[in-house]
Amino acid sequence: MKNFTLRYGENRLYFGLNTIGKLKEHLNGIEHAIVVTGRRSAEQSGALRGVEKILKEFGIRYIIFNRVRPNPTIDLADQLAREAWKNSSDCIIAIGGGSVIDVSKISSVIAVNGGEAQDYLKKRVIKRKLKLFVVNLTHGTGSEVDRFAVITKGKEKVGISIRYPDVSFDDPRYTQSLPWDQAVYTSIDAFFHSYESVTARTTNPMVEALAINSAKIIGENVKEEQSIKEKYNLLYASMAAGIALDMSPAHIVHAIEHALSGINPKLAHGCGLGIVGARSIYWIHKRSKNSRKILEALVDKPIRSASDAERAFRDFLSRIRFEERLSDYSFGRDDFPEIKELVFGKLRYLIERSEVPFSEEMLLDILEKSL
Amino acid sequence: MKNFTLRYGENRLYFGLNTIGKLKEHLNGIEHAIVVTGRRSAEQSGALRGVEKILKEFGIRYIIFNRVRPNPTIDLADQLAREAWKNSSDCIIAIGGGSVIDVSKISSVIAVNGGEAQDYLKKRVIKRKLKLFVVNLTHGTGSEVDRFAVITKGKEKVGISIRYPDVSFDDPRYTQSLPWDQAVYTSIDAFFHSYESVTARTTNPMVEALAINSAKIIGENVKEEQSIKEKYNLLYASMAAGIALDMSPAHIVHAIEHALSGINPKLAHGCGLGIVGARSIYWIHKRSKNSRKILEALVDKPIRSASDAERAFRDFLSRIRFEERLSDYSFGRDDFPEIKELVFGKLRYLIERSEVPFSEEMLLDILEKSL
Repeated sequence: MKNFTLRYGENRLYFGLNTIGKLKEHLNGIEHAIVVTGRRSAEQSGALRGVEKILKEFGIRYIIFNRVRPNPTIDLADQLAREAWKNSSDCIIAIGGGSVIDVSKISSVIAVNGGEAQDYLKKRVIKRKLKLFVVNLTHGTGSEVDRFAVITKGKEKVGISIRYPDVSFDDPRYTQSLPWDQAVYTSIDAFFHSYESVTARTTNPMVEALAINSAKIIGENVKEEQSIKEKYNLLYASMAAGIALDMSPAHIVHAIEHALSGINPKLAHGCGLGIVGARSIYWIHKRSKNSRKILEALVDKPIRSASDAERAFRDFLSRIRFEERLSDYSFGRDDFPEIKELVFGKLRYLIERSEVPFSEEMLLDILEKSL
Repeated sequence: MKNFTLRYGENRLYFGLNTIGKLKEHLNGIEHAIVVTGRRSAEQSGALRGVEKILKEFGIRYIIFNRVRPNPTIDLADQLAREAWKNSSDCIIAIGGGSVIDVSKISSVIAVNGGEAQDYLKKRVIKRKLKLFVVNLTHGTGSEVDRFAVITKGKEKVGISIRYPDVSFDDPRYTQSLPWDQAVYTSIDAFFHSYESVTARTTNPMVEALAINSAKIIGENVKEEQSIKEKYNLLYASMAAGIALDMSPAHIVHAIEHALSGINPKLAHGCGLGIVGARSIYWIHKRSKNSRKILEALVDKPIRSASDAERAFRDFLSRIRFEERLSDYSFGRDDFPEIKELVFGKLRYLIERSEVPFSEEMLLDILEKSL
């Protein structure tokens, strides 16, 4: 298990065990920090303790903003930005998964440019950025290396290209306290970052090299006995998928999931992807040649048809004991029109990224077979 | 064949056909440019014409410095730096392969920090950098994405970590005029960037994903009939190998080659790697588990032993009609002591990067079997 440093985009990423100490090299000029977390994982993982120790050692004042919950809203981003501004914070230190990182990205921009989160959803020009450190706690988001943030506005989930973190930390130790269901959900999320990046119009040879390798690693390492070695591998796979996604963003499966978790915020992102993913793969596979390559990497056996592809992915889900359905989240056929309106309305920009033309009939079939 | 933009290190790389037009987006504030080339390839490839057209369109004054030759010296880097300084150039535009790019990297630093090339070989602090554009003309160097430069000082070739280019262009059209021997040499160079990066101590999962995929592409695309598609693939493989190299630098094979072409500057870098590469692989393969993976990717068949590895690589060389030997460059056993002194003296820092312990006996065996 090698530690390494990766410079991608505007980010410097420290990958590996006990890399948090490198934070010390980036604290020049920092007098006040705002530490952003969710409810529990920052503490449970030990990451918060690691960061606080360094801040104290350097005499840096800080406050903890621990109000982030899954599927965070624009209001929360505005609150966090106000806290950072009010306290003249010199940086945001995000300790968490995608929700914590994404809110922090948006707030780091509002804090020093003014305005509100929704201005930036409408592509307001970003003139300055508050320094952003990210300590990633899941092996699913990819947000620690990419420039995207997803935020909820009413029932709508909006994905925007906003900024890279300045410095990120991927330490597999911090993912060891992830509960099994979260480990599964975030692995599914990472897989769909890879799968959708190579089946998007924007795919390229580097996206394919990183994403197909990522899928192979996910297939080999999602298992109930997870030593630090499996965690290292899954975290790498998720990070590599994040780079693939940054160059070639997600489309159909993410669009459907964003509609679903916009309607029911209790649905975890990776879980929603798992629920609608298998039948989405059926339709994407029919038209995309990369679909076969990446699924064969995931399941390590030949895939001969779209039905075969769907079956192989369902077998993978069974193997990792993922059995959830739309009906578990109180979705029924009554919800289909609203989902359709979201996917082909506000989320149309996502499905247009796919190299596969996508129709309402396909969507209805996917939803029906995911009930 | 997709065009794409990659942000790695401090570089923004435009990859694909007709990407040179993107240069226009980066010329703000540029009044004078110094265009650096070798003897012929900048003209023959059409790249120089493409760049000049844009400079004229923007009313940018420029001079052409066309004095770079293979295995360039520190004197040349000093000359180029002086030209840039004397003309108050706002940027260097390097159009060529590794030699042109590497000299330009070094001179871009001297021009605005002062001193001489040899100061920077001794790790003088770099406070400023002249803007550096790179139009890469070979599918071998990797220097368009990495931070390294190799320069000759007397008989010594010195590799230093100096700077990333600011903006690079990888257009496969520009590699179409490469003569066949150069196409072979540069492909061998790209392969050894991949091979050595995964067998270095510093290898990591991303290096492995990029390098093993790169070797596979090289194995499939070095053939005498090279359409633009093969050129696109080889250029991608070389660029990806450059990123692998940037994270995990070369060692034994490059050390031996640097000693050889330091003694005989007529030896092209990729040619030297090809000559000593097969037997070097034999020794590295004995101790490195990644050697098997990357060779199997190159030759697309199972490798069962170190002898098998050497044979497979020799077969690959035969297939691409590479038949050169040390004796073709007037090396004989008389030269072995000098080579040994260089490899285990000034170039020792290179061999220490290998995950394989390397001995004088191994070196002598490699040289003997490459005569």
